[in-house]
Amino acid sequence: MSASIFQQNLERTEANFQPQTPLSYLKWAASVYPQKTAVVHGDRQFTYQEFENRCVRLASALANRGIGLGDTVSFMAPNGPALLEAHYGVPMTGAVLNALNFRLDAQTIAEILIHAETKVLFTDREFSPVISQALKKISHDILVIDIDDPLASGGSRIGEIDYEQFLDAGDSDYDWQMPADEWQAISLNYTSGTTGNPKGVVYHHRGAFLNAMGDILSFGLNRDTVYLWTLPMFHCNGWCYTWAVTAVGGTHVCQRNIVPAEIFTKIKGRGVTHFCGAPIVLNMLVHAPATDKLAFPQKVEVMTGGAAPPSAIIAAMEQMGFNVTHAYGLTESFGPSTVCAWQDEWAELSLDAKASQMARQGIRYPTLFDQAVMDPDTMTRVPADGKTMGEIMLRGNTVMKGYLKNPAATAEAFKGGWYHTGDIAVMHGDGYVEIKDRSKDVIISGGENISSLEVEEVLYKHPLIMEAAVVARPDEKWGETTCAFVTLRPDAAALTQDSVIEYCRDHLARYKVPRTVVFGPLPKTSTGKIQKFVLREQAKELQ
Amino acid sequence: MSASIFQQNLERTEANFQPQTPLSYLKWAASVYPQKTAVVHGDRQFTYQEFENRCVRLASALANRGIGLGDTVSFMAPNGPALLEAHYGVPMTGAVLNALNFRLDAQTIAEILIHAETKVLFTDREFSPVISQALKKISHDILVIDIDDPLASGGSRIGEIDYEQFLDAGDSDYDWQMPADEWQAISLNYTSGTTGNPKGVVYHHRGAFLNAMGDILSFGLNRDTVYLWTLPMFHCNGWCYTWAVTAVGGTHVCQRNIVPAEIFTKIKGRGVTHFCGAPIVLNMLVHAPATDKLAFPQKVEVMTGGAAPPSAIIAAMEQMGFNVTHAYGLTESFGPSTVCAWQDEWAELSLDAKASQMARQGIRYPTLFDQAVMDPDTMTRVPADGKTMGEIMLRGNTVMKGYLKNPAATAEAFKGGWYHTGDIAVMHGDGYVEIKDRSKDVIISGGENISSLEVEEVLYKHPLIMEAAVVARPDEKWGETTCAFVTLRPDAAALTQDSVIEYCRDHLARYKVPRTVVFGPLPKTSTGKIQKFVLREQAKELQ
Repeated sequence: MSASIFQQNLERTEANFQPQTPLSYLKWAASVYPQKTAVVHGDRQFTYQEFENRCVRLASALANRGIGLGDTVSFMAPNGPALLEAHYGVPMTGAVLNALNFRLDAQTIAEILIHAETKVLFTDREFSPVISQALKKISHDILVIDIDDPLASGGSRIGEIDYEQFLDAGDSDYDWQMPADEWQAISLNYTSGTTGNPKGVVYHHRGAFLNAMGDILSFGLNRDTVYLWTLPMFHCNGWCYTWAVTAVGGTHVCQRNIVPAEIFTKIKGRGVTHFCGAPIVLNMLVHAPATDKLAFPQKVEVMTGGAAPPSAIIAAMEQMGFNVTHAYGLTESFGPSTVCAWQDEWAELSLDAKASQMARQGIRYPTLFDQAVMDPDTMTRVPADGKTMGEIMLRGNTVMKGYLKNPAATAEAFKGGWYHTGDIAVMHGDGYVEIKDRSKDVIISGGENISSLEVEEVLYKHPLIMEAAVVARPDEKWGETTCAFVTLRPDAAALTQDSVIEYCRDHLARYKVPRTVVFGPLPKTSTGKIQKFVLREQAKELQ
Repeated sequence: MSASIFQQNLERTEANFQPQTPLSYLKWAASVYPQKTAVVHGDRQFTYQEFENRCVRLASALANRGIGLGDTVSFMAPNGPALLEAHYGVPMTGAVLNALNFRLDAQTIAEILIHAETKVLFTDREFSPVISQALKKISHDILVIDIDDPLASGGSRIGEIDYEQFLDAGDSDYDWQMPADEWQAISLNYTSGTTGNPKGVVYHHRGAFLNAMGDILSFGLNRDTVYLWTLPMFHCNGWCYTWAVTAVGGTHVCQRNIVPAEIFTKIKGRGVTHFCGAPIVLNMLVHAPATDKLAFPQKVEVMTGGAAPPSAIIAAMEQMGFNVTHAYGLTESFGPSTVCAWQDEWAELSLDAKASQMARQGIRYPTLFDQAVMDPDTMTRVPADGKTMGEIMLRGNTVMKGYLKNPAATAEAFKGGWYHTGDIAVMHGDGYVEIKDRSKDVIISGGENISSLEVEEVLYKHPLIMEAAVVARPDEKWGETTCAFVTLRPDAAALTQDSVIEYCRDHLARYKVPRTVVFGPLPKTSTGKIQKFVLREQAKELQ
């Protein structure tokens, strides 16, 4: 068959084909709203012109140190200008931003920095103790740069130079380049995954550009948006809001820690219109002391994810002037892929019925190509009956490039041409997805993923423990907490819950440590496999 | 240099790379809002489920007739369900939608249908006379299908089958496919261009997907949007709002003709939130009889383009409850590429000062990669001083594939890696572009482009006319009208303006016919070239 007339002499050129990249958003905002406030952090604030200038100087200073295409630049920092600027300054050099979860322990951080082949590490003063420990475990050279945030508490400077001095060394006329290819890597986010070995999820410019659009559409951002950074920017690049807020010329208001009094003060004083966070954040706002709860005139849009928001929380948040929307996604899908889009007829439902509609994961972002609940063996869709279980599968341009240096895991994740989320769900008649279980062995506590295998591995190393199985225990505040079931060696002396917890603290990041330890024999199949579903039921019924 | 770790084993797969296409928006809206009203036309209305169903049946019926990848399907229709459905149903088969300007004359339409190699032509009953004439000039086979809109006036059925019957022959379970490649052609829009030979501008799925996003961001569409179709859908596929409104699950309210009483009735009765149109449409609303002007409670957003809105119109529209935004673009840029984004500080300006800010073309859509004012010879940017003139150049993913079967014109348009708009402008200090003149010889009357060369060619064929030059004459209502300067043959009998106009009506679409004819010698350079700039000045000063 010969080519049609529409396939002749109509090739891509520089005029009609350019990379899709979120870097173009900063260039846009800085040219349209140069004098508008882009970033607020404590007493400091930067206009879009200043923000762009700082990003360009960061890029220039990195380039001066030899950083370029395909190099990894890691950040250990809470929300603040430095980490936000990194979302632009690092990829402006062609390098890849690796934002670390600052709750991780030294050993895990060291493993990540080694696996990522990090060349430069920026670290907030507050995290200097854990970073100092981590660096001792690493043999390759890393340029360490301090972020000496005045709002940081404790710690000391351990790097060669301070972030602000480093920026001063950069040239604001640096001629940075857009990526040559929209498939180029922009960031690297480690997920605890299911095995305890962190996996490096690689994002591409095309997906970051698009998921930022998806955020704007799904969350209703516009030029009047004042976005409060309650969600850590290290979480899937702040669910791509690091780029989305800039794309509309909105204002980024930084928030280092979750302190309800500070959050209410900013909502009122800064006119915050939007924020994101795990249900624990909403929980903290609801249960804040009455003196901390300031009234505010605007309606504040809240996107929550990581776990379904309980109905009591939705109701309490609404009463305070918030409008809560539930979103779902994974590190592998650039953060939110799915949103529980509001339907007008829900307004007439009882609070409980409404909350159960709103607690579902929902429908795909319009920027995601497709979402399905499938039988993973046959790769066919389950009926949309709200009953038949299957695995949530995603497909489209906001799915990761793959796992860094792990082609086997990448191939496994993309088997059959879909990304396998590992989440077991039903498809309702209205096209909304609802998670029923997780096929991956993950506990989600306060918005953080915890691999049960990682915790089990630590427990198995305890000299008195013979067997261990770790599952999620439902928790009103944290969503879930880690619950360990252990069997002691026959010859073991007695062991207390507290001593097991104490032991785990020495080997795990604090948020992963079991809150509950149950002693006794473990239920098993006839072939000797531990029956986790039985333990999950037991964990649910613990008083 | 070896490939970085981010370039290894991280290839595109079906899971993470899929075509960007506006077809995905319809699939999304129909799954999320199946029962919501998608389309309103007179007494008829369709939910999103019905809308999708109709589009799929259109695709199926076309496929049954052998229509597929790279075939052209033309539509001669005013705004209504059929043409809107064509924006989905035609590309669902892989075919290319060619929406005709229904104001064109039979000869031009015939030339287009021949050039486009149209296989199927849908025609509204009202346009059967001109289509019948056009078909007589064509030798290749075209399947003609009538659109027997109850709101059409006059005309007769000339096709093989009626649109609704044709849909009935389609299968609503038809397994349509997304395009294999986002670079695939989705539509073909003819522009009069500068030479009088219409040029076929080819759009790709990627650009249509993206410019719809740009519309949503720039015009603030969301799920509560009720969009009134005052802008003809044949204009750059309705500036991509045919796809954008669907992408947010908004409601399309069709409007066949510009009748102020009907428009006000719909704004009030249907709760219209947004519409687009040339300044002439705004003009008609402002000057409508008081009895037609219904008050409405909502703020209605209006995007206008094709010419700068005069300050009196902006003020009068604001007083009625409209908020006017000026946008700029061309057929080659999928309609709007540029918008005069509002700046808060303008609120404090006098009406005139505000209007002159708002009448500028403005800044690029965030979805356009770059916009510049350049010296076309050196391809360097002019200083942003508001004085130095240059040509507006566009670059990015919302620029056409090129001109159909016209590689020379495509190469010329994309010279130096930018699309040359032909519009002469200055760049202001705030980054806003303002058009000062057009390098292309085009008159824009009531939002329609008219090639002065095409009109001149007709005049030159008049037996008594020796020389002719056609320029734009400023007009309060239409923006510009066609003004002809003619010199008669030495032996010619006297000729009146009316007889020249009458002659032109026989050979040109009505809107192109000169409103003014001036007799006398033409000003020329020493080398004999007609000095059009002198004539433009004269046309401005005509009483």
